Amino acid sequence: MGNMKLSQRINNTPSSPIRKLEAVARNAKARGIKIYHLNIGQPDIKPPAIMINWLKKSTINQIKYTESQGDRRLIGSLVKYYGRLGAADIDEDNIIITLGGSESILWSFLAVSEIGDEILVFEPFYTNLRGYASMAGIKLAAVTCKIEDGFHLPPNQVIKSKLTGKTKAVYLCNPNNPTGTFYSPAEFKRLYQFCLANNLFLICDEAYRDFVYQKVESATALNFEKKSKSGQIIVVDSFSKRYSLCGLRVGFLVCRNKELISSVLKFGQARLSAGDLDQQIAARLDVVPGSYLKRVRQEYQSRRDIIDQGLKNIPGAIFKKPAGAFYFMVKLPVGDADRFCQWLLTDFHDHKETVMLTPANGFYLTRGSGQEEVRLAYVLNKKDLKRAMIILQKAVARWNR
Amino acid sequence: MGNMKLSQRINNTPSSPIRKLEAVARNAKARGIKIYHLNIGQPDIKPPAIMINWLKKSTINQIKYTESQGDRRLIGSLVKYYGRLGAADIDEDNIIITLGGSESILWSFLAVSEIGDEILVFEPFYTNLRGYASMAGIKLAAVTCKIEDGFHLPPNQVIKSKLTGKTKAVYLCNPNNPTGTFYSPAEFKRLYQFCLANNLFLICDEAYRDFVYQKVESATALNFEKKSKSGQIIVVDSFSKRYSLCGLRVGFLVCRNKELISSVLKFGQARLSAGDLDQQIAARLDVVPGSYLKRVRQEYQSRRDIIDQGLKNIPGAIFKKPAGAFYFMVKLPVGDADRFCQWLLTDFHDHKETVMLTPANGFYLTRGSGQEEVRLAYVLNKKDLKRAMIILQKAVARWNR
Repeated sequence: MGNMKLSQRINNTPSSPIRKLEAVARNAKARGIKIYHLNIGQPDIKPPAIMINWLKKSTINQIKYTESQGDRRLIGSLVKYYGRLGAADIDEDNIIITLGGSESILWSFLAVSEIGDEILVFEPFYTNLRGYASMAGIKLAAVTCKIEDGFHLPPNQVIKSKLTGKTKAVYLCNPNNPTGTFYSPAEFKRLYQFCLANNLFLICDEAYRDFVYQKVESATALNFEKKSKSGQIIVVDSFSKRYSLCGLRVGFLVCRNKELISSVLKFGQARLSAGDLDQQIAARLDVVPGSYLKRVRQEYQSRRDIIDQGLKNIPGAIFKKPAGAFYFMVKLPVGDADRFCQWLLTDFHDHKETVMLTPANGFYLTRGSGQEEVRLAYVLNKKDLKRAMIILQKAVARWNR
Repeated sequence: MGNMKLSQRINNTPSSPIRKLEAVARNAKARGIKIYHLNIGQPDIKPPAIMINWLKKSTINQIKYTESQGDRRLIGSLVKYYGRLGAADIDEDNIIITLGGSESILWSFLAVSEIGDEILVFEPFYTNLRGYASMAGIKLAAVTCKIEDGFHLPPNQVIKSKLTGKTKAVYLCNPNNPTGTFYSPAEFKRLYQFCLANNLFLICDEAYRDFVYQKVESATALNFEKKSKSGQIIVVDSFSKRYSLCGLRVGFLVCRNKELISSVLKFGQARLSAGDLDQQIAARLDVVPGSYLKRVRQEYQSRRDIIDQGLKNIPGAIFKKPAGAFYFMVKLPVGDADRFCQWLLTDFHDHKETVMLTPANGFYLTRGSGQEEVRLAYVLNKKDLKRAMIILQKAVARWNR
């Protein structure tokens, strides 16, 4: 209808590779197939009761704009949070609340780059960055990480080879979505020093920061610039994963450079306010008992181990057990993971049950990369997860028969 | 801290002129001055009880991502809403839910323009458009409307003179923020036909659509293309003003061009979801009794009349009584409205009370325009509003003494 042309930039914006199998999945369900969803990052864990219960207990009459920087109580709760993490110098003027982690990433891009500039990512990477890059009119450049290395960072000279005169920042998600990789303090420090040496901002996505399954100090990136106070680290974060509150659109951006915060506040003013109710719920983070995150971490860790065990039973599967987040990447002996993931929904079932996975090629910029890789999100209970892994083993065997 | 440069584009993004007097106002309050806030568009009206009460009655255990296009019940409620308005052909695929009206405007800009393109606005205009234009990398071009004409649209040749090869769309807010002007059906039709003739999208902001204080069919812009079905009209809208739910970040974008909807859905997927709770509340719009909006409209109408009467008592004040929204623009005999509004907060009081207004120069792109104009938002109860108008009369008299 109509013959008006839409913009090239919207035509060039990619669809989400995570969501492209949705229609095929709906068809499978219509045929009576039960699907175990290992494809999405929507946790099944219960959020902290003390947050949700606030909705029942409080007397809500009005739902008003909050300050554009964010609800004061929420910002205060985050100041305390960073104090407990060891970044005691972070104060209210270092923080701005955003409409989800998504908005904090978009604003960080806009704050550090001009149109046509580049931001460096490590592939496979969080695929929605493409959408933000498209909105911000910038280019993503990718440094490839390898499944055989557990997706750890390559040597500095490899990273350096991807820099151009237009590179303004490096984006790192730690622990990583989609790989689950946790970059050690030494590894992170190397990257931070690389950014210092090359005058680059370092955008650190810490949405999964509390989910690390090994005995290391799980520090915020902000702790690494406590001495230099360079203001080059921009932390972007969200409540979605930490407290299993995906539908709560509350994220935040933290930076020691207060000018950066007051500058992105101009975008905040333009969109007026984040959600009033959602921020009130999030503000209760300061009364969530420490045992909550500990229990969640233990739950994810045992789920990760179920996936690890299940994949060991698939001949030819290549993977390293990741130490963080709730994702697992694996190279399956299936030739074309895209076709395999589709086939799982269209042609395969085991006693009327199948699994849904995310083909990994959408997480790469480099063409032809990740063709045999898939991402698994362990957001199902342990019983379902065990069953899903058995289905996957059978499926790979059937595919290769 | 740090010597890393922020982007030029963020440095060039203007601060909100509505919020720049906030610090001065805080100081006045600290000195014990009571301020009547006529400066902000945060209504004091109670939202529909049936929406708020849903929070208490429902059993909320999880707060999850909704579909990126929006909660199905909410979209269904909006389909019915447009059906009642006379646009019965609008279906689910013509609608996408956004994080506030702000996001719907930003997406409409991105959908129709390339970087460097232009969008035409009528000044004085909703100042936050500057922020979205900055984010989208486009330029706003302004057609000036005059207070003496009640800010109605100038002749087509005046509008046409502002077009360049890069103009892709016209943005119109009807009824208007900041002027309160309601563009009649004939006036709107002329603009729509102008857009058809010049291959321009017409972005219609209908956030104030239900607040029209004269006997006309208050139709949605979509009704004007029922015959042509050109798909050139993009309606952007919000729940903030209609139901006094500013802190509910739910807006929506409606267009007959389904390709446009499926294209902006890619931005929707990149930011995953709008707020779960907020959408559930908004979805109850289909059970809000019609009497609710009628009562709100009557309340605003009598407030408008109080302002109108109050301004008539200010010698030299120039204005036309507007027919919509809850804003009133007036040219005051004060020389420099910016300084006057500041002085109201720093030097003036009447029995320890003063008023806060928004100087209008920030609503204009053309330098030097609107120097004597201010915007009043009638978001106070009638008693307070009457007192505020008396204070304003005294203040203008004192200023000119």
